[in-house]
Amino acid sequence: MSFDRLWADLAPVGRDDDSGGYHRYTWADADTEARAWFTDAATARGLDVRADRNGNLWAWWGTPGPGAVATGSHLDSVPDGGAFDGPLGVAAALAAVDELRGRGVTPVRPLAVTVFAEEEGGRFGVPCLGSRLSAGEISPERARGLTDASGVTWGRAMEAAGHDPLALGADPGALADLDVFVELHVEQGRALEDTAHPVGVASAIWPHGRWRMDFTGRADHAGTTRLEDRNDPMLPFAHAILAARSLAERHDARATVARALVSPNGTNAIPSLVSAWLDARAADSGTLDAVVAGVREAAADAARDHGVGYAMTGESLTPLVGFAHGLRDRLAAVVGTRAPDPRVPVLPTGAGHDAGVLAAHVPTAMLYVRNPTGVSHSPREHARPDDCHAGVLALADVLQDLLARPVRPVGAV
Amino acid sequence: MSFDRLWADLAPVGRDDDSGGYHRYTWADADTEARAWFTDAATARGLDVRADRNGNLWAWWGTPGPGAVATGSHLDSVPDGGAFDGPLGVAAALAAVDELRGRGVTPVRPLAVTVFAEEEGGRFGVPCLGSRLSAGEISPERARGLTDASGVTWGRAMEAAGHDPLALGADPGALADLDVFVELHVEQGRALEDTAHPVGVASAIWPHGRWRMDFTGRADHAGTTRLEDRNDPMLPFAHAILAARSLAERHDARATVARALVSPNGTNAIPSLVSAWLDARAADSGTLDAVVAGVREAAADAARDHGVGYAMTGESLTPLVGFAHGLRDRLAAVVGTRAPDPRVPVLPTGAGHDAGVLAAHVPTAMLYVRNPTGVSHSPREHARPDDCHAGVLALADVLQDLLARPVRPVGAV
Repeated sequence: MSFDRLWADLAPVGRDDDSGGYHRYTWADADTEARAWFTDAATARGLDVRADRNGNLWAWWGTPGPGAVATGSHLDSVPDGGAFDGPLGVAAALAAVDELRGRGVTPVRPLAVTVFAEEEGGRFGVPCLGSRLSAGEISPERARGLTDASGVTWGRAMEAAGHDPLALGADPGALADLDVFVELHVEQGRALEDTAHPVGVASAIWPHGRWRMDFTGRADHAGTTRLEDRNDPMLPFAHAILAARSLAERHDARATVARALVSPNGTNAIPSLVSAWLDARAADSGTLDAVVAGVREAAADAARDHGVGYAMTGESLTPLVGFAHGLRDRLAAVVGTRAPDPRVPVLPTGAGHDAGVLAAHVPTAMLYVRNPTGVSHSPREHARPDDCHAGVLALADVLQDLLARPVRPVGAV
Repeated sequence: MSFDRLWADLAPVGRDDDSGGYHRYTWADADTEARAWFTDAATARGLDVRADRNGNLWAWWGTPGPGAVATGSHLDSVPDGGAFDGPLGVAAALAAVDELRGRGVTPVRPLAVTVFAEEEGGRFGVPCLGSRLSAGEISPERARGLTDASGVTWGRAMEAAGHDPLALGADPGALADLDVFVELHVEQGRALEDTAHPVGVASAIWPHGRWRMDFTGRADHAGTTRLEDRNDPMLPFAHAILAARSLAERHDARATVARALVSPNGTNAIPSLVSAWLDARAADSGTLDAVVAGVREAAADAARDHGVGYAMTGESLTPLVGFAHGLRDRLAAVVGTRAPDPRVPVLPTGAGHDAGVLAAHVPTAMLYVRNPTGVSHSPREHARPDDCHAGVLALADVLQDLLARPVRPVGAV
């Protein structure tokens, strides 16, 4: 299957040979190389590749215009991420085009394979940045000014990669032209592994967001400063880590502190500042609010106890995405024709996706490919070759069905 | 006083104009510039400046040889450190030479002004590295291989700065030639501020050390991984921070976690590794052992609870330094002749110093200059100009006294 060749060509790009993980950061070298892989592969298939104003790539089969069917994902990674999260959906989309050609399908409506920029927020901190810009959910000014860990802005990085940062902005016409968007993605959990199904369908994306917490203390000597004279921001930071965990347990939600910057970060220098990020997700927005409010309160209490300043700032918030039931059921039925059992699993996820951003504007659905480890954002993330092939066939079946009969008229959104 | 000119010349070197703090990292540009300031100032005074095999600087008044009196401190800083910690003792030593010259003193024995390398361990992690090397307390092999945050070794950095890393090693002859070493230092606490005394004398340095703690978890997606499936190293890390504080409170000691590296440090990526450093100090070694053992146990328990690997490694340990009483009392008497009250304060400290390393080999003493903020390792560290001048005069008085009558014969060590 053409998928294997596509996958093998992309595999070395941005890989850390020690860990086996990937470092593909938007606009950096590995990302540019991955985008070139996409452009070459799409061009070789006779698709017409264009970057939109926000740096997302669109490879068109047929002339762009109303009623288009789109499918794709992203190529950027978290630091030391897995091979599949994002690229699987892009490579499967290109392989599905080959499959459709092999079946003799000639689309009566345009088909696009897409690559959205900075889905992980791994470099500039805001996830789904490319799709959020196109959907008008983040202002061009804010996006241009987002900085990476070295202080380089999105605007400068984009410009260095050959894109015009002044062109950034919402693209309502492009979204209005889409009849439907389907994203195929590696499963980020082990629900399918306990079934006979290599492919599942998404029901919903939990509401989720990121909050930055700044604990402002006073730099001082760790050896000479009496405990009672300290304003040590590391202490309320530790309380916040533990509060996030216990609140997530209590509310059957997810809350994680996985990123922290300590300043000045010297062994014998009480920090002047600890900045940390809370990632929180829950099945509904009321629960999410309760978890975040609980962390905020626990952190503020601990900060007060230690004479430390505290501020919590929301960096992104994505409400519950319930994929349209009609479209979801249609996909499940199509996937079911080739599945070991017609009752294809329909699953919610805690992970955000470009599909979640687009769902407010375009009829949108997702397919999941089984992940035997259940792990993602890690070199251990995996999908078996046979399951990837099953994903390509399922996606081709779905695209063929969607091309044959528009979604919008049936009122899926 | 010549001190003011020396101080003004050094002030801009490595200063962060936003914070007012200093970034003088051994062998980096600001350090090279500070060493050039020292060499120029000493040479202008007719002193003969030599770097020893470990990169420490010695400026000689008279011919190096037995019975020498030495005084000095260091020029490197912690990240965003204060202006006084280290440089005050170097500038005061040069100004004391001027003062002695002004008094018509001609040393009958050699006098050296010293600058020890990497006292803070701010770049390569091991404090007092220059003096430890000379004292034979760390092997040249280990020192050469120490790395900074970018992976540059001490050996390569030293070589790039024009010193031969293969020459590293103990210097027993140089230490045997010293009759006495005196280090003047800014006070790192507020004990003198509550007295009429601008200058105090050291009684002891608390035993202290640094321990590295590695918490090894499993990278995974923060949004999709069930809490019970996680091996999140951030959680036992948080427990270790809080355990260090509560054990320090219980034992009337100091224990601080001020430095941490989170990997991969992505907002939505459960870390695979958190490395953190414990800085602990106590009035006696039994108490220090109890504090460190308590942190080790609490961290190990929490790591076990979360399925996280845990290792604690000692990086440096300095036993109690009790400065010789005879020498200490002699300094206090000399300082007392110019003090507002002859009962000069004699104070212990939790901070390590090159004087503490040398004390095992050479009769050693310390003078402290009052610090009105009590803060150190911070831009807020301070000493008033009048107190600095009092420090220079006290140091000159002490050196004059020591030059006049050797210490070793009176059996101070």
